[in-house]
Amino acid sequence: MLDLIKTRRSIRNFTDKNIDDELVDKILEAGRWAPSGLNNQPWRFAVVKDQGLKDKLSLLTKYSHSISSANVLIAVFLDQNVSYERTKDCQAVGACVQNMLLSIHWLGLGGVWLGEILKSGPEVGEILEAPSGHELMAVIAMGYPAGPAPKIPGRQGLSELTFFRK
Amino acid sequence: MLDLIKTRRSIRNFTDKNIDDELVDKILEAGRWAPSGLNNQPWRFAVVKDQGLKDKLSLLTKYSHSISSANVLIAVFLDQNVSYERTKDCQAVGACVQNMLLSIHWLGLGGVWLGEILKSGPEVGEILEAPSGHELMAVIAMGYPAGPAPKIPGRQGLSELTFFRK
Repeated sequence: MLDLIKTRRSIRNFTDKNIDDELVDKILEAGRWAPSGLNNQPWRFAVVKDQGLKDKLSLLTKYSHSISSANVLIAVFLDQNVSYERTKDCQAVGACVQNMLLSIHWLGLGGVWLGEILKSGPEVGEILEAPSGHELMAVIAMGYPAGPAPKIPGRQGLSELTFFRK
Repeated sequence: MLDLIKTRRSIRNFTDKNIDDELVDKILEAGRWAPSGLNNQPWRFAVVKDQGLKDKLSLLTKYSHSISSANVLIAVFLDQNVSYERTKDCQAVGACVQNMLLSIHWLGLGGVWLGEILKSGPEVGEILEAPSGHELMAVIAMGYPAGPAPKIPGRQGLSELTFFRK
């Protein structure tokens, strides 16, 4: 488990091999089982495989290549109609995304958590026909990894991150 | 992996068996390797084993029992000095907490993600000598599980959560 967590990395280049719908469902399933405050499950999903849609979305971020070359996109929205406290809801969405990223890695696929595209949240919502009150929180681009595995960015040590221990 | 995600539950009752420091470090290590926007790693940790401190903290939430009977508490703070965008930073903290909860479960321990105590964030920060700009984001109470495993609260189905698929 710890090994899975530590070897996960952001994969931004993909082959054109198709991901079976069954695998996509497994990944969404992992997201669905995340914890949330009061179990309010504020996450909502849009799944994109259509190349025309991916190309349209790719124009809304500087990371166009990851979007257009991904086999599948999972856009994660916060349903503000069931939101109860923004800080906690954003944390819950983060837990949900992390469940999906770990599952992607575990399944031998590669994925990247895209946040820069949030600047175009309303436009993404329009393309994906998001219901009212749905706010874009993240896009996961995924596929079978192409090319050499990228380096994992380093992390600060535990002693730097832990300010109190008693 | 999916099985681990789906069988994780909130454990609120603990035996008085001690958790080795080595295991606590493994759990923090899992948190440390979470993804964050721009890899800013905004999470900071305070680890509490001292019973006097736990009892003090337990007065700051209605979930006193989970706090005072836990063997170890991990309080997770957001370091606003390295924060770059609140929504994304809260998501990163959520990913970090989820890594730790999954690791706790994987190690055969039990834990619960406490959010209600955020209402007393400044008081918690004072007790734990949090540096300036450290905002309480979550407390994980953990220990060896006592009593029967609690029911896992249900989740909405994928078809309810997925509003777009093309």
